[in-house]
Amino acid sequence: MVSSSFGTLFRVSTFGESHGVGVGVTVDGCPPRLALDMDAVQADLDRRRPGQSRLVTQRAEGDVVEVLSGLYEGRTTGTPIAMLVRNADQNSGAYDHLKDVYRPSHADFTYDAKYGFRDHRGGGRSSARETIGRVAAGAIARQLLAASSGVEVLGWVSQVHDIDATVDPTTVTLDDVEADPTRCPDPDAAAAMTAAIEQARRDGDSLGGVVTVVARNVPAGLGEPVFDKLDADLAKAMMSLPASKGFEVGSGFAGTRMTGLAHNDPFVPGPDGPMTATNRSGGVQGGISNGADIVCRVAFKPTGTIASEQRTVTTDGVATTLAARGRHDPCVLPRAVPLVEAMMLLTLADHLLRQRAIDLLP
Amino acid sequence: MVSSSFGTLFRVSTFGESHGVGVGVTVDGCPPRLALDMDAVQADLDRRRPGQSRLVTQRAEGDVVEVLSGLYEGRTTGTPIAMLVRNADQNSGAYDHLKDVYRPSHADFTYDAKYGFRDHRGGGRSSARETIGRVAAGAIARQLLAASSGVEVLGWVSQVHDIDATVDPTTVTLDDVEADPTRCPDPDAAAAMTAAIEQARRDGDSLGGVVTVVARNVPAGLGEPVFDKLDADLAKAMMSLPASKGFEVGSGFAGTRMTGLAHNDPFVPGPDGPMTATNRSGGVQGGISNGADIVCRVAFKPTGTIASEQRTVTTDGVATTLAARGRHDPCVLPRAVPLVEAMMLLTLADHLLRQRAIDLLP
Amino acid sequence: MVSSSFGTLFRVSTFGESHGVGVGVTVDGCPPRLALDMDAVQADLDRRRPGQSRLVTQRAEGDVVEVLSGLYEGRTTGTPIAMLVRNADQNSGAYDHLKDVYRPSHADFTYDAKYGFRDHRGGGRSSARETIGRVAAGAIARQLLAASSGVEVLGWVSQVHDIDATVDPTTVTLDDVEADPTRCPDPDAAAAMTAAIEQARRDGDSLGGVVTVVARNVPAGLGEPVFDKLDADLAKAMMSLPASKGFEVGSGFAGTRMTGLAHNDPFVPGPDGPMTATNRSGGVQGGISNGADIVCRVAFKPTGTIASEQRTVTTDGVATTLAARGRHDPCVLPRAVPLVEAMMLLTLADHLLRQRAIDLLP
Amino acid sequence: MVSSSFGTLFRVSTFGESHGVGVGVTVDGCPPRLALDMDAVQADLDRRRPGQSRLVTQRAEGDVVEVLSGLYEGRTTGTPIAMLVRNADQNSGAYDHLKDVYRPSHADFTYDAKYGFRDHRGGGRSSARETIGRVAAGAIARQLLAASSGVEVLGWVSQVHDIDATVDPTTVTLDDVEADPTRCPDPDAAAAMTAAIEQARRDGDSLGGVVTVVARNVPAGLGEPVFDKLDADLAKAMMSLPASKGFEVGSGFAGTRMTGLAHNDPFVPGPDGPMTATNRSGGVQGGISNGADIVCRVAFKPTGTIASEQRTVTTDGVATTLAARGRHDPCVLPRAVPLVEAMMLLTLADHLLRQRAIDLLP
Repeated sequence: MVSSSFGTLFRVSTFGESHGVGVGVTVDGCPPRLALDMDAVQADLDRRRPGQSRLVTQRAEGDVVEVLSGLYEGRTTGTPIAMLVRNADQNSGAYDHLKDVYRPSHADFTYDAKYGFRDHRGGGRSSARETIGRVAAGAIARQLLAASSGVEVLGWVSQVHDIDATVDPTTVTLDDVEADPTRCPDPDAAAAMTAAIEQARRDGDSLGGVVTVVARNVPAGLGEPVFDKLDADLAKAMMSLPASKGFEVGSGFAGTRMTGLAHNDPFVPGPDGPMTATNRSGGVQGGISNGADIVCRVAFKPTGTIASEQRTVTTDGVATTLAARGRHDPCVLPRAVPLVEAMMLLTLADHLLRQRAIDLLP
Repeated sequence: MVSSSFGTLFRVSTFGESHGVGVGVTVDGCPPRLALDMDAVQADLDRRRPGQSRLVTQRAEGDVVEVLSGLYEGRTTGTPIAMLVRNADQNSGAYDHLKDVYRPSHADFTYDAKYGFRDHRGGGRSSARETIGRVAAGAIARQLLAASSGVEVLGWVSQVHDIDATVDPTTVTLDDVEADPTRCPDPDAAAAMTAAIEQARRDGDSLGGVVTVVARNVPAGLGEPVFDKLDADLAKAMMSLPASKGFEVGSGFAGTRMTGLAHNDPFVPGPDGPMTATNRSGGVQGGISNGADIVCRVAFKPTGTIASEQRTVTTDGVATTLAARGRHDPCVLPRAVPLVEAMMLLTLADHLLRQRAIDLLP
Repeated sequence: MVSSSFGTLFRVSTFGESHGVGVGVTVDGCPPRLALDMDAVQADLDRRRPGQSRLVTQRAEGDVVEVLSGLYEGRTTGTPIAMLVRNADQNSGAYDHLKDVYRPSHADFTYDAKYGFRDHRGGGRSSARETIGRVAAGAIARQLLAASSGVEVLGWVSQVHDIDATVDPTTVTLDDVEADPTRCPDPDAAAAMTAAIEQARRDGDSLGGVVTVVARNVPAGLGEPVFDKLDADLAKAMMSLPASKGFEVGSGFAGTRMTGLAHNDPFVPGPDGPMTATNRSGGVQGGISNGADIVCRVAFKPTGTIASEQRTVTTDGVATTLAARGRHDPCVLPRAVPLVEAMMLLTLADHLLRQRAIDLLP
Repeated sequence: MVSSSFGTLFRVSTFGESHGVGVGVTVDGCPPRLALDMDAVQADLDRRRPGQSRLVTQRAEGDVVEVLSGLYEGRTTGTPIAMLVRNADQNSGAYDHLKDVYRPSHADFTYDAKYGFRDHRGGGRSSARETIGRVAAGAIARQLLAASSGVEVLGWVSQVHDIDATVDPTTVTLDDVEADPTRCPDPDAAAAMTAAIEQARRDGDSLGGVVTVVARNVPAGLGEPVFDKLDADLAKAMMSLPASKGFEVGSGFAGTRMTGLAHNDPFVPGPDGPMTATNRSGGVQGGISNGADIVCRVAFKPTGTIASEQRTVTTDGVATTLAARGRHDPCVLPRAVPLVEAMMLLTLADHLLRQRAIDLLP
């Protein structure tokens, strides 16, 4: 069943496996005449790439994107934009020991249950390399949103394990985020996170955490009532990322411990019409953007792949143990930031086009 | 833009407003030959209905469902099942004072921003009455899942404001849930919740909380890799419910504070093949069901409508104040339980059919 | 599998059977603020209704449409518009003799093959009564197209059996078409058609024919390249009508007997830019409207239901014979005209909204 | 707006332009575990390729397909199969004279009207090279249909200009079709067609014609009632091919000149249940396959590109003339055969999976 597409009007479809020819994406529905800066697309891909610092896996990859279609003289033509990143690191033999065993808390067993068959090399389709296509497509959405509406999207690491950062979503900048390899813009928290991640690596263990993302300058009116609410689509977008286990918008779970009187966002007169004095709604009311910053939080579990020995079973159902070999991220949070941004960008671009189709009559 | 449909193969579309002729739903894609128990459908609707106890709003409604199509001699024909519930309580004049003012943390302002126009009576399309169609469709999905796979879905109130219930998701029963009007199966917590809700009513205030839902006997293999992960679709489903602000599957946000070694679910040999010794994954790995119980939590903010006076603005952008009139739920959690169940049921039915289409070849 | 929806942005879903409670439709995606003339909707339904003249079946039906949702103070709200027409003529017993036999060239056998089960009364879901929903939705599309773009759509009977009408698609009017019960605007042909249809009735036989439809003032640029070409979507739309067996746009099959030099439409300077001197393209080039009239032809086979005795088999596979009882249309062509118009209108409305979403950037 | 995808469960998306990097396709939804013969895929592509004989354009292209994803050890994994064919012949300068002029009966003007912008080189996205992806995907569908249901699909040229072939759809074979470069299995007609095509080339003119296609062993029950009728989806599929102007199933337009008594297909007892004694329905009744051969005819207009001088206008709207340069097919019919087969295959594969999802309950 069709599984690899996201969005209805700005429609993104990824393809490819960890150890096949490559991974890629098609973007169908990008409006024509957008002057596309491919260097900026590559820059977003570089933020996702492993090997950026000692904190993340050292696998060396160029991950250089090739545009196969959809551009003419640097501008989008309105037809599908296909992009391909070839796989470079192809030591498939390194995965032979995983052929007949299910890694705990990975997709090995469930792929077998679903398909009766799987590519065990590097997770195959469930590999995080699939997200390369999302980031490339998100980078196009970023340019479309900026050109048409001035929208900007920024994410950061707000929690690693038990270390919580203090960050003001309304003022934090990309420079703040990129100042540290953790992508945590709170320097004290960043230092503590770094120490914790290093320790986890030494322990053969791994850590999880939370990415927060904000979208600014989103026009009011995006999102549909009922099922395709903007925050419902954002929830799906974020929960489709590998290792994500939770999603919040605005006050989220913490807001359930407030009373209505404390939680409601009063409307006040603003320079361009009504605005909210507070933003516990997270920029979305009744599933539709209200013009305030959209603020979401995404929970990522600790990485499943760890060097410590774990109990598991073989594909024949016999008990065994397994310890990961080679280098692995003890914490995916820093690299998850561009993924979360990408999913926010793709969701907003889609709803921007959807709203455009509504505004037909005077 | 199309906004009122959910699912791809088991496709549910709702229609109707709070103060129009009625609300309804079509279910397109329900397999033929299902002997449908319409009394059971009505029973699920009755669980959603206001006026069940002193805890919830006293508006008297019959909410009797009429089947317009898709059944022949008590069985589904494979063609669209349309169901209609007519609106009975039509005192539209009661909403005149809301015509020119935006209720805080409601969809009034965003509907105007989106459509340039809205039906102010009872929230119009954003009214919780829209969920009647979801519950009716979910009740059909419940029967389809039971008949084909033995799946059962059960939800309960696990938190109201700062009161947390202690409930074992693996053993709790429908009788446990329905034993108290709060739909909290922990009697001590239920008593405390009742007191808190009564107090909120007296205070002209409102409370939020969390609904937990479990799906049992779900076959391994449901859900798609990449975007249409089972938990991603569940996240969208739940976040499309009115007033929901957060979603978790399995360990959720709490799991981000564990290490990988503590968090991973070891596989162990089971009677029917590999199974997990623990269930921090919440029954979903890599976006695909693994045969364990699927466990989700949904956060609902405190109700926006409160009797206390709040700051807001008129539709002309002038500052004013507003206090809700009449009777209102100080806490929607008990009535949210059948809604959460419905969205779980609809998501599972859809993915069951999707998996069916995959299993073509030997 | 989902089967009863048409369109992507102007999305129409029908429901209902010949002998259930009623038939209806939801329109999801109609832009807000359209002042809807429901009398005009009813008028289109009346054109579809049986019993308009001696030429068509005399079954008496009111077919009065009830709007269930989506309108507020006479204008569309942007949310789903649901409409219901209740079934009045419910003499199901009249169909008892069809319960165990397959009518030749009907859907009886194929429904059983598909669903293992069917409602034999009046064709059930395959009844032409399903098209009531299409016509009601098409009437809304007609008003949307007129209000936003000045588009007008007109169909007529251009052939019955071996009688071909002579009609100029560029000048024919609705009054011309409605001047005769045949809906053939060529008076001589209309008279011959009437005689032929009367003779077929006396013979216990039936006749087929062709409906031609034109859309005027369609802006250039509607339709998508590749799969969702405007003429491809029109072909699907028309071939989804009961009894249709063929579709042509512009020169159609006849054009295959011309040479390229004779067939090509030369561009010439026009008052608003390039226009074609001829219109063998039928208003569509490369799947996209070019501003010229869109002209299509739809073939309808002779009605399957005839009073003469025919060979067939029982549901148990035993040879038998069957002759239709009661009154039946010997020729559906006059009533097919509003159906063809409706499908043209729905297709154009959908592509108008799709093009709107493309035109985002300056 | 999304434009380049076909099918709902067996979903095919093409990308690429005539003079970009290449053209390609993704197939999302192909069931897992299909042992894929890539030589057979290449063989179907070779049938589509120009330069096969003196009758068709001599442009030399390898058109070798590269699989980018979705296969593991020769079998489909259930995840997207991406395929790429790089463009070899890149003499873009040959198109400079077309930059500022609209070719008659091509998509040049309509692309500008739609996108405000176009790639004029070789037609860009409207180039027939886009169909490479369809044929590659169709070749996979062919193997899926054969493996699961024994379905076979065969097309041939049944008419060129005024030359009509005599072919029995029930017995004609692939060898018959491939015996002559015209792909017309009637030798006398093939010889006349060859002479006519050669003459058209000498005249700087072009010819159109008709391709007939048959699908055998299609199980009864494929196709949905109402909008997604099997023949409606086939009509869309065929009308989405470049240069197609008409579609018929079964008796088509000719059937409109028969009476019902002569046209109806009597049911007779067959070895596996009811079957029709004749096949004027073309294997589809009520939009659903009845087990008989599915027979369709597709009209292709004479090629728009001709060496003779034609009137047209510049992009600035000034009258001019244009004559095609270089080599061009005077008749696309022989090469259209694999395209028509591909669209039949894609439609059937999609409906096979859709029907699979319906057959859930006993």
